[in-house]
Amino acid sequence: MANSPSGESVISRVVRLMSAFDRDLPTMTLSGLARRAGLPLTTAHRLVDDLVLHGLIERLPDGNLRSGMRMWELAARGSRALNLRELALPFMDDVQAAVHQHTTLAVLDHGTVLYVERLSSPASSLDAAHIAQRMPIHAASSGLVLLAFSPARFQDEVLTRPLAAVTPETITDPGLIRKHLADIRQRGYVALPGIGVTEWTGIAVPVFGPDNGIAAALNAIVPRQEAAVPLIVPALLTAAHGISRALKAAAATRR
Amino acid sequence: MANSPSGESVISRVVRLMSAFDRDLPTMTLSGLARRAGLPLTTAHRLVDDLVLHGLIERLPDGNLRSGMRMWELAARGSRALNLRELALPFMDDVQAAVHQHTTLAVLDHGTVLYVERLSSPASSLDAAHIAQRMPIHAASSGLVLLAFSPARFQDEVLTRPLAAVTPETITDPGLIRKHLADIRQRGYVALPGIGVTEWTGIAVPVFGPDNGIAAALNAIVPRQEAAVPLIVPALLTAAHGISRALKAAAATRR
Repeated sequence: MANSPSGESVISRVVRLMSAFDRDLPTMTLSGLARRAGLPLTTAHRLVDDLVLHGLIERLPDGNLRSGMRMWELAARGSRALNLRELALPFMDDVQAAVHQHTTLAVLDHGTVLYVERLSSPASSLDAAHIAQRMPIHAASSGLVLLAFSPARFQDEVLTRPLAAVTPETITDPGLIRKHLADIRQRGYVALPGIGVTEWTGIAVPVFGPDNGIAAALNAIVPRQEAAVPLIVPALLTAAHGISRALKAAAATRR
Repeated sequence: MANSPSGESVISRVVRLMSAFDRDLPTMTLSGLARRAGLPLTTAHRLVDDLVLHGLIERLPDGNLRSGMRMWELAARGSRALNLRELALPFMDDVQAAVHQHTTLAVLDHGTVLYVERLSSPASSLDAAHIAQRMPIHAASSGLVLLAFSPARFQDEVLTRPLAAVTPETITDPGLIRKHLADIRQRGYVALPGIGVTEWTGIAVPVFGPDNGIAAALNAIVPRQEAAVPLIVPALLTAAHGISRALKAAAATRR
Protein backbone atom coordinates (compact mmCIF):
# COMPACT_ATOMS: atom_id res chain seq x y z
CA MET A 1 0.00 0.00 0.00
CA ALA A 2 1.06 3.53 -0.71
CA ASN A 3 4.65 2.60 -1.19
CA SER A 4 7.28 4.35 -3.25
CA PRO A 5 9.10 2.49 -6.07
CA SER A 6 11.70 1.61 -3.41
CA GLY A 7 8.95 -0.11 -1.39
CA GLU A 8 9.15 2.46 1.41
CA SER A 9 5.79 3.41 2.93
CA VAL A 10 4.42 6.97 3.16
CA ILE A 11 4.62 6.69 6.95
CA SER A 12 8.30 5.81 6.78
CA ARG A 13 9.00 8.77 4.51
CA VAL A 14 7.00 11.12 6.78
CA VAL A 15 9.05 9.92 9.77
CA ARG A 16 12.22 10.71 7.82
CA LEU A 17 10.93 14.22 7.04
CA MET A 18 9.83 14.98 10.60
CA SER A 19 13.13 13.57 12.00
CA ALA A 20 15.02 16.17 9.98
CA PHE A 21 13.82 18.95 12.29
CA ASP A 22 15.68 19.21 15.55
CA ARG A 23 16.73 21.57 18.26
CA ASP A 24 19.81 22.77 16.38
CA LEU A 25 18.02 23.13 13.06
CA PRO A 26 14.31 23.87 13.70
CA THR A 27 13.65 25.56 10.33
CA MET A 28 14.92 24.83 6.83
CA THR A 29 14.13 25.20 3.14
CA LEU A 30 12.29 22.53 1.22
CA SER A 31 15.46 21.44 -0.57
CA GLY A 32 17.37 21.39 2.74
CA LEU A 33 14.63 19.27 4.27
CA ALA A 34 14.62 16.86 1.30
CA ARG A 35 18.41 16.52 1.56
CA ARG A 36 18.41 15.86 5.32
CA ALA A 37 15.56 13.36 4.93
CA GLY A 38 17.33 11.63 2.04
CA LEU A 39 14.30 11.99 -0.27
CA PRO A 40 14.05 13.17 -3.89
CA LEU A 41 12.92 16.81 -4.05
CA THR A 42 9.69 15.99 -5.91
CA THR A 43 8.72 13.36 -3.30
CA ALA A 44 9.52 15.73 -0.43
CA HIS A 45 7.60 18.52 -2.15
CA ARG A 46 4.43 16.41 -2.51
CA LEU A 47 4.55 15.06 1.05
CA VAL A 48 5.36 18.48 2.56
CA ASP A 49 2.36 20.05 0.79
CA ASP A 50 0.11 17.44 2.41
CA LEU A 51 1.83 17.84 5.81
CA VAL A 52 1.39 21.64 5.61
CA LEU A 53 -2.30 21.13 4.75
CA HIS A 54 -2.72 19.18 8.01
CA GLY A 55 -0.62 21.62 10.07
CA LEU A 56 2.06 19.00 10.84
CA ILE A 57 4.61 21.23 9.11
CA GLU A 58 4.33 25.04 9.08
CA ARG A 59 5.46 27.27 6.22
CA LEU A 60 6.95 30.52 7.56
CA PRO A 61 6.49 33.88 5.79
CA ASP A 62 10.04 33.56 4.37
CA GLY A 63 9.14 30.19 2.84
CA ASN A 64 11.16 28.13 5.34
CA LEU A 65 9.56 25.10 6.96
CA ARG A 66 9.31 24.02 10.58
CA SER A 67 7.58 21.36 12.65
CA GLY A 68 3.96 22.42 13.21
CA MET A 69 2.06 23.07 16.43
CA ARG A 70 -0.52 20.51 15.28
CA MET A 71 2.22 17.85 15.19
CA TRP A 72 3.11 18.65 18.79
CA GLU A 73 -0.56 18.69 19.77
CA LEU A 74 -1.25 15.29 18.15
CA ALA A 75 1.71 13.76 19.93
CA ALA A 76 1.09 15.47 23.25
CA ARG A 77 -2.59 14.75 23.79
CA GLY A 78 -2.42 11.06 24.49
CA SER A 79 1.20 10.95 25.45
CA ARG A 80 2.71 8.90 28.23
CA ALA A 81 5.63 11.35 28.27
CA LEU A 82 3.35 14.29 28.95
CA ASN A 83 1.30 12.55 31.66
CA LEU A 84 4.47 11.42 33.40
CA ARG A 85 6.12 14.84 33.31
CA GLU A 86 2.93 16.58 34.42
CA LEU A 87 2.82 14.45 37.57
CA ALA A 88 6.58 14.67 38.11
CA LEU A 89 7.05 18.40 37.56
CA PRO A 90 6.24 19.68 41.08
CA PHE A 91 8.65 17.13 42.58
CA MET A 92 11.37 17.93 40.05
CA ASP A 93 10.90 21.55 40.96
CA ASP A 94 11.63 20.74 44.61
CA VAL A 95 14.90 19.07 43.60
CA GLN A 96 15.78 21.90 41.27
CA ALA A 97 15.30 24.46 44.05
CA ALA A 98 17.93 22.60 46.08
CA VAL A 99 20.36 21.57 43.35
CA HIS A 100 20.51 24.60 41.00
CA GLN A 101 21.71 22.48 38.06
CA HIS A 102 19.94 20.27 35.52
CA THR A 103 17.23 17.98 36.88
CA THR A 104 15.95 15.46 34.33
CA LEU A 105 13.33 12.76 33.99
CA ALA A 106 14.05 9.92 31.56
CA VAL A 107 12.44 6.69 30.34
CA LEU A 108 13.60 3.70 28.32
CA ASP A 109 12.27 3.67 24.76
CA HIS A 110 13.44 1.54 21.84
CA GLY A 111 16.55 0.48 23.73
CA THR A 112 17.84 3.96 24.58
CA VAL A 113 17.36 6.59 27.26
CA LEU A 114 14.84 9.28 26.25
CA TYR A 115 14.70 12.52 28.29
CA VAL A 116 11.05 13.54 28.74
CA GLU A 117 11.62 16.54 31.01
CA ARG A 118 14.42 18.80 32.12
CA LEU A 119 14.51 21.72 34.51
CA SER A 120 17.56 23.91 34.31
CA SER A 121 19.23 26.75 36.02
CA PRO A 122 20.91 29.68 34.28
CA ALA A 123 23.80 28.68 36.56
CA SER A 124 24.38 25.47 34.61
CA SER A 125 26.52 25.65 31.51
CA LEU A 126 25.96 22.03 30.47
CA ASP A 127 24.54 21.71 26.96
CA ALA A 128 23.28 18.12 27.21
CA ALA A 129 20.28 16.00 28.21
CA HIS A 130 17.81 18.22 26.37
CA ILE A 131 14.13 17.30 26.33
CA ALA A 132 13.43 14.68 23.62
CA GLN A 133 17.14 13.87 23.29
CA ARG A 134 18.41 10.31 23.61
CA MET A 135 21.53 8.74 25.16
CA PRO A 136 22.91 5.19 25.04
CA ILE A 137 21.76 3.30 28.15
CA HIS A 138 25.28 2.48 29.40
CA ALA A 139 26.53 6.07 28.96
CA ALA A 140 24.01 7.81 31.24
CA SER A 141 23.38 7.53 34.97
CA SER A 142 19.64 7.45 34.17
CA GLY A 143 20.23 4.58 31.74
CA LEU A 144 22.10 2.51 34.33
CA VAL A 145 19.31 3.01 36.89
CA LEU A 146 16.63 2.10 34.34
CA LEU A 147 18.63 -0.98 33.32
CA ALA A 148 19.32 -2.07 36.92
CA PHE A 149 15.60 -2.47 37.60
CA SER A 150 14.69 -3.91 34.18
CA PRO A 151 13.97 -7.63 33.55
CA ALA A 152 17.12 -9.81 33.32
CA ARG A 153 16.30 -10.69 29.71
CA PHE A 154 16.41 -7.03 28.69
CA GLN A 155 19.70 -6.53 30.57
CA ASP A 156 21.22 -9.47 28.67
CA GLU A 157 19.99 -8.03 25.39
CA VAL A 158 21.54 -4.61 26.11
CA LEU A 159 24.83 -6.00 27.42
CA THR A 160 25.45 -8.33 24.48
CA ARG A 161 25.20 -5.43 22.01
CA PRO A 162 28.41 -3.54 21.12
CA LEU A 163 28.83 -0.81 23.76
CA ALA A 164 30.46 2.31 22.35
CA ALA A 165 32.41 4.73 24.53
CA VAL A 166 30.89 8.23 24.54
CA THR A 167 33.72 9.60 26.71
CA PRO A 168 37.02 7.99 27.83
CA GLU A 169 35.23 7.14 31.10
CA THR A 170 32.14 5.42 29.63
CA ILE A 171 32.02 1.88 31.02
CA THR A 172 31.90 -0.55 28.10
CA ASP A 173 32.81 -3.82 29.84
CA PRO A 174 29.57 -5.83 30.31
CA GLY A 175 30.93 -7.55 33.41
CA LEU A 176 31.79 -4.26 35.08
CA ILE A 177 28.38 -2.82 34.13
CA ARG A 178 26.70 -5.83 35.78
CA LYS A 179 28.62 -5.08 38.99
CA HIS A 180 27.38 -1.49 38.87
CA LEU A 181 23.79 -2.69 38.28
CA ALA A 182 23.96 -4.93 41.36
CA ASP A 183 25.38 -2.02 43.32
CA ILE A 184 22.55 0.28 42.12
CA ARG A 185 19.90 -2.26 43.14
CA GLN A 186 21.47 -2.48 46.60
CA ARG A 187 22.11 1.23 47.21
CA GLY A 188 19.11 2.60 45.31
CA TYR A 189 21.05 5.19 43.35
CA VAL A 190 24.02 5.76 41.05
CA ALA A 191 26.54 8.61 40.93
CA LEU A 192 29.22 8.26 38.26
CA PRO A 193 31.45 11.03 36.92
CA GLY A 194 32.21 11.48 33.23
CA ILE A 195 30.45 8.46 31.71
CA GLY A 196 28.26 10.56 29.40
CA VAL A 197 29.80 14.03 29.52
CA THR A 198 33.36 14.67 30.70
CA GLU A 199 33.57 16.99 33.72
CA TRP A 200 29.97 16.27 34.81
CA THR A 201 28.58 13.76 37.29
CA GLY A 202 25.16 12.22 36.75
CA ILE A 203 23.25 11.15 39.84
CA ALA A 204 20.14 9.07 39.23
CA VAL A 205 17.47 7.23 41.22
CA PRO A 206 14.58 4.97 40.12
CA VAL A 207 10.93 6.02 39.95
CA PHE A 208 8.59 3.06 40.30
CA GLY A 209 5.16 2.83 38.67
CA PRO A 210 1.80 1.64 39.99
CA ASP A 211 2.77 -1.98 39.16
CA ASN A 212 6.02 -1.50 41.17
CA GLY A 213 7.99 -1.88 37.94
CA ILE A 214 10.54 0.74 36.91
CA ALA A 215 8.75 3.72 35.29
CA ALA A 216 11.44 6.39 34.95
CA ALA A 217 14.76 7.67 36.24
CA LEU A 218 15.10 10.96 38.09
CA ASN A 219 18.49 12.55 37.65
CA ALA A 220 20.60 15.57 38.54
CA ILE A 221 23.73 16.56 36.64
CA VAL A 222 26.34 18.44 38.62
CA PRO A 223 29.92 19.58 37.96
CA ARG A 224 32.42 16.81 38.59
CA GLN A 225 34.10 18.59 41.49
CA GLU A 226 30.72 19.18 43.21
CA ALA A 227 31.08 18.24 46.87
CA ALA A 228 27.35 18.12 47.58
CA VAL A 229 26.62 14.73 45.94
CA PRO A 230 25.89 13.04 49.32
CA LEU A 231 23.24 15.72 49.93
CA ILE A 232 21.69 15.49 46.44
CA VAL A 233 20.98 11.75 46.69
CA PRO A 234 18.40 12.08 49.51
CA ALA A 235 16.75 15.00 47.68
CA LEU A 236 16.37 12.84 44.56
CA LEU A 237 15.15 9.82 46.56
CA THR A 238 12.50 11.92 48.31
CA ALA A 239 11.28 13.43 45.04
CA ALA A 240 11.26 10.02 43.29
CA HIS A 241 9.13 8.64 46.11
CA GLY A 242 6.70 11.51 45.66
CA ILE A 243 6.47 10.88 41.90
CA SER A 244 5.80 7.16 42.50
CA ARG A 245 3.03 8.09 44.92
CA ALA A 246 1.50 10.48 42.37
CA LEU A 247 1.67 7.80 39.64
CA LYS A 248 -0.11 5.32 41.91
CA ALA A 249 -2.80 7.85 42.87
CA ALA A 250 -3.39 8.69 39.19
CA ALA A 251 -3.66 4.99 38.28
CA ALA A 252 -6.15 4.40 41.11
CA THR A 253 -8.31 7.31 39.86
CA ARG A 254 -8.41 5.86 36.34
CA ARG A 255 -9.76 2.53 37.59
CA MET B 1 -0.42 9.60 -4.58
CA ALA B 2 -1.02 7.02 -1.93
CA ASN B 3 -4.68 7.84 -1.68
CA SER B 4 -7.53 5.61 -0.58
CA PRO B 5 -10.48 4.95 -2.94
CA SER B 6 -12.14 7.97 -1.27
CA GLY B 7 -9.18 10.10 -2.38
CA GLU B 8 -7.98 10.62 1.20
CA SER B 9 -4.20 10.61 1.63
CA VAL B 10 -2.28 8.33 3.98
CA ILE B 11 -1.21 11.41 5.94
CA SER B 12 -4.83 12.44 6.43
CA ARG B 13 -5.75 8.96 7.68
CA VAL B 14 -2.73 8.88 10.02
CA VAL B 15 -3.80 12.25 11.45
CA ARG B 16 -7.28 10.79 12.07
CA LEU B 17 -5.76 7.79 13.86
CA MET B 18 -3.40 9.84 16.04
CA SER B 19 -6.21 12.33 16.87
CA ALA B 20 -8.21 9.46 18.37
CA PHE B 21 -5.84 9.29 21.35
CA ASP B 22 -6.42 11.91 23.99
CA ARG B 23 -6.07 12.67 27.64
CA ASP B 24 -9.34 10.99 28.58
CA LEU B 25 -8.76 7.94 26.39
CA PRO B 26 -5.01 7.34 26.04
CA THR B 27 -5.26 3.61 25.24
CA MET B 28 -7.75 1.62 23.16
CA THR B 29 -8.22 -1.55 21.13
CA LEU B 30 -7.62 -1.62 17.40
CA SER B 31 -11.34 -1.77 16.68
CA GLY B 32 -12.00 1.08 19.12
CA LEU B 33 -9.28 3.13 17.42
CA ALA B 34 -10.69 2.39 13.94
CA ARG B 35 -14.16 3.43 15.12
CA ARG B 36 -12.98 6.70 16.71
CA ALA B 37 -10.91 7.50 13.62
CA GLY B 38 -13.82 6.68 11.30
CA LEU B 39 -11.75 4.21 9.29
CA PRO B 40 -12.55 0.68 8.07
CA LEU B 41 -10.96 -1.92 10.36
CA THR B 42 -8.74 -3.35 7.58
CA THR B 43 -7.40 0.12 6.71
CA ALA B 44 -6.76 0.93 10.38
CA HIS B 45 -5.09 -2.45 10.89
CA ARG B 46 -2.65 -1.91 8.02
CA LEU B 47 -1.78 1.66 9.02
CA VAL B 48 -1.42 0.77 12.71
CA ASP B 49 1.01 -2.05 11.90
CA ASP B 50 3.20 0.44 10.04
CA LEU B 51 2.85 3.06 12.81
CA VAL B 52 3.82 0.45 15.45
CA LEU B 53 6.84 -0.51 13.32
CA HIS B 54 8.02 3.12 13.50
CA GLY B 55 7.19 3.51 17.21
CA LEU B 56 4.54 6.19 16.57
CA ILE B 57 1.96 3.89 18.17
CA GLU B 58 2.85 1.43 20.96
CA ARG B 59 1.20 -1.96 21.45
CA LEU B 60 0.82 -2.73 25.17
CA PRO B 61 1.22 -6.25 26.59
CA ASP B 62 -2.60 -6.55 26.77
CA GLY B 63 -2.87 -5.73 23.05
CA ASN B 64 -4.22 -2.21 23.58
CA LEU B 65 -2.71 0.66 21.61
CA ARG B 66 -1.42 4.05 22.71
CA SER B 67 0.44 7.00 21.25
CA GLY B 68 4.16 6.17 21.12
CA MET B 69 7.11 7.88 22.76
CA ARG B 70 8.67 8.18 19.30
CA MET B 71 5.67 10.24 18.14
CA TRP B 72 6.19 12.63 21.06
CA GLU B 73 9.94 12.73 20.37
CA LEU B 74 9.47 13.50 16.65
CA ALA B 75 7.07 16.31 17.48
CA ALA B 76 9.07 17.67 20.40
CA ARG B 77 12.54 17.91 18.91
CA GLY B 78 12.01 20.80 16.54
CA SER B 79 8.97 22.20 18.22
CA ARG B 80 8.19 25.86 18.70
CA ALA B 81 5.90 24.86 21.58
CA LEU B 82 8.73 23.15 23.42
CA ASN B 83 11.25 25.94 22.89
CA LEU B 84 8.73 28.50 24.08
CA ARG B 85 7.75 26.58 27.20
CA GLU B 86 11.38 25.79 28.04
CA LEU B 87 12.20 29.50 28.10
CA ALA B 88 8.95 30.40 29.85
CA LEU B 89 8.94 27.74 32.57
CA PRO B 90 11.13 29.49 35.19
CA PHE B 91 8.99 32.65 34.90
CA MET B 92 5.74 30.67 35.05
CA ASP B 93 7.10 29.04 38.14
CA ASP B 94 7.55 32.45 39.78
CA VAL B 95 3.90 33.28 39.06
CA GLN B 96 2.76 29.87 40.26
CA ALA B 97 4.59 30.33 43.57
CA ALA B 98 2.56 33.49 44.17
CA VAL B 99 -0.81 32.47 42.71
CA HIS B 100 -1.24 28.81 43.79
CA GLN B 101 -3.72 28.07 40.97
CA HIS B 102 -3.34 27.21 37.29
CA THR B 103 -0.75 29.21 35.37
CA THR B 104 -0.87 28.63 31.61
CA LEU B 105 0.98 29.62 28.46
CA ALA B 106 -1.00 29.66 25.21
CA VAL B 107 -0.49 30.47 21.53
CA LEU B 108 -2.76 30.98 18.55
CA ASP B 109 -2.76 28.10 16.10
CA HIS B 110 -5.20 27.37 13.28
CA GLY B 111 -7.62 29.97 14.58
CA THR B 112 -7.93 28.69 18.14
CA VAL B 113 -6.10 29.01 21.45
CA LEU B 114 -3.67 26.14 22.10
CA TYR B 115 -2.28 25.66 25.62
CA VAL B 116 1.42 24.74 25.40
CA GLU B 117 2.17 24.68 29.12
CA ARG B 118 0.36 24.61 32.41
CA LEU B 119 1.58 24.62 35.98
CA SER B 120 -0.94 23.63 38.61
CA SER B 121 -1.41 23.45 42.28
CA PRO B 122 -3.04 20.58 44.16
CA ALA B 123 -5.12 23.42 45.64
CA SER B 124 -6.85 24.04 42.32
CA SER B 125 -9.87 21.92 41.50
CA LEU B 126 -10.33 23.30 37.98
CA ASP B 127 -10.26 20.57 35.31
CA ALA B 128 -9.62 22.79 32.28
CA ALA B 129 -6.88 24.36 30.16
CA HIS B 130 -4.85 21.15 29.99
CA ILE B 131 -1.63 21.07 27.99
CA ALA B 132 -2.36 20.52 24.27
CA GLN B 133 -6.03 21.40 24.75
CA ARG B 134 -7.70 24.08 22.66
CA MET B 135 -10.31 26.76 23.38
CA PRO B 136 -12.23 29.12 21.08
CA ILE B 137 -10.43 32.49 20.94
CA HIS B 138 -13.40 34.53 22.24
CA ALA B 139 -14.08 32.16 25.15
CA ALA B 140 -10.68 32.40 26.86
CA SER B 141 -8.87 35.32 28.46
CA SER B 142 -5.69 34.12 26.68
CA GLY B 143 -7.56 34.16 23.37
CA LEU B 144 -8.75 37.74 23.84
CA VAL B 145 -5.21 38.91 24.67
CA LEU B 146 -3.75 37.07 21.66
CA LEU B 147 -6.49 38.56 19.44
CA ALA B 148 -6.07 42.09 20.82
CA PHE B 149 -2.46 42.25 19.60
CA SER B 150 -3.05 40.37 16.32
CA PRO B 151 -3.24 42.10 12.91
CA ALA B 152 -6.59 43.82 12.20
CA ARG B 153 -7.23 41.49 9.26
CA PHE B 154 -7.05 38.44 11.53
CA GLN B 155 -9.37 40.12 14.08
CA ASP B 156 -11.91 40.75 11.30
CA GLU B 157 -11.66 37.14 10.19
CA VAL B 158 -12.28 35.81 13.72
CA LEU B 159 -15.09 38.23 14.52
CA THR B 160 -17.07 37.56 11.35
CA ARG B 161 -17.20 33.82 12.12
CA PRO B 162 -20.16 32.51 14.17
CA LEU B 163 -19.18 32.88 17.85
CA ALA B 164 -20.64 30.13 20.02
CA ALA B 165 -21.28 30.62 23.73
CA VAL B 166 -19.26 28.21 25.89
CA THR B 167 -20.91 29.48 29.09
CA PRO B 168 -23.83 31.90 29.62
CA GLU B 169 -21.20 34.62 30.13
CA THR B 170 -19.14 34.04 26.95
CA ILE B 171 -19.17 37.30 24.98
CA THR B 172 -20.47 36.53 21.48
CA ASP B 173 -21.27 40.06 20.25
CA PRO B 174 -18.45 41.12 17.86
CA GLY B 175 -18.95 44.82 18.71
CA LEU B 176 -18.60 44.18 22.42
CA ILE B 177 -15.53 41.98 21.84
CA ARG B 178 -13.92 44.83 19.85
CA LYS B 179 -14.47 47.13 22.85
CA HIS B 180 -12.75 44.58 25.09
CA LEU B 181 -9.84 44.27 22.62
CA ALA B 182 -9.33 48.07 22.67
CA ASP B 183 -9.47 47.97 26.44
CA ILE B 184 -6.87 45.16 26.58
CA ARG B 185 -4.49 47.08 24.27
CA GLN B 186 -4.81 50.11 26.54
CA ARG B 187 -4.55 48.37 29.92
CA GLY B 188 -2.19 45.57 28.88
CA TYR B 189 -4.22 42.77 30.45
CA VAL B 190 -7.66 41.18 30.67
CA ALA B 191 -9.56 39.73 33.64
CA LEU B 192 -13.01 38.38 32.84
CA PRO B 193 -15.06 36.00 34.98
CA GLY B 194 -16.95 33.05 33.58
CA ILE B 195 -16.35 33.46 29.83
CA GLY B 196 -14.76 30.01 29.42
CA VAL B 197 -15.57 28.20 32.66
CA THR B 198 -18.32 29.31 35.02
CA GLU B 199 -17.08 30.22 38.52
CA TRP B 200 -13.53 30.88 37.33
CA THR B 201 -11.82 34.10 36.29
CA GLY B 202 -9.11 34.07 33.64
CA ILE B 203 -6.45 36.77 33.86
CA ALA B 204 -4.13 37.06 30.86
CA VAL B 205 -1.30 39.27 29.62
CA PRO B 206 0.60 39.37 26.31
CA VAL B 207 4.09 37.95 25.76
CA PHE B 208 5.87 39.67 22.88
CA GLY B 209 8.42 37.99 20.62
CA PRO B 210 11.80 39.17 19.27
CA ASP B 211 9.99 40.96 16.39
CA ASN B 212 7.78 42.73 18.97
CA GLY B 213 4.78 40.84 17.61
CA ILE B 214 2.52 38.86 19.92
CA ALA B 215 4.12 35.47 20.69
CA ALA B 216 1.98 34.00 23.47
CA ALA B 217 -0.44 34.74 26.30
CA LEU B 218 0.45 34.16 29.94
CA ASN B 219 -2.57 33.41 32.09
CA ALA B 220 -3.70 32.56 35.60
CA ILE B 221 -7.08 31.03 36.39
CA VAL B 222 -8.49 31.81 39.83
CA PRO B 223 -11.82 31.21 41.55
CA ARG B 224 -14.38 33.86 40.62
CA GLN B 225 -14.61 35.25 44.14
CA GLU B 226 -10.82 35.62 44.37
CA ALA B 227 -10.05 39.07 45.80
CA ALA B 228 -6.37 39.01 44.82
CA VAL B 229 -6.85 39.75 41.08
CA PRO B 230 -5.28 43.25 41.38
CA LEU B 231 -2.17 41.60 42.84
CA ILE B 232 -1.98 38.83 40.23
CA VAL B 233 -1.89 41.22 37.27
CA PRO B 234 1.51 42.73 38.17
CA ALA B 235 2.91 39.24 38.83
CA LEU B 236 1.82 38.14 35.34
CA LEU B 237 3.13 41.34 33.71
CA THR B 238 6.52 40.91 35.36
CA ALA B 239 6.79 37.26 34.29
CA ALA B 240 5.61 38.07 30.73
CA HIS B 241 8.31 40.72 30.50
CA GLY B 242 10.89 38.16 31.60
CA ILE B 243 9.72 35.66 29.00
CA SER B 244 9.89 38.31 26.25
CA ARG B 245 13.43 39.11 27.32
CA ALA B 246 14.39 35.41 27.22
CA LEU B 247 12.84 35.02 23.74
CA LYS B 248 14.83 38.01 22.49
CA ALA B 249 18.07 36.71 24.02
CA ALA B 250 17.51 33.27 22.43
CA ALA B 251 16.81 34.83 19.02
CA ALA B 252 19.97 36.94 19.27
CA THR B 253 22.04 33.83 20.05
CA ARG B 254 20.69 32.02 16.99
CA ARG B 255 21.74 34.83 14.66
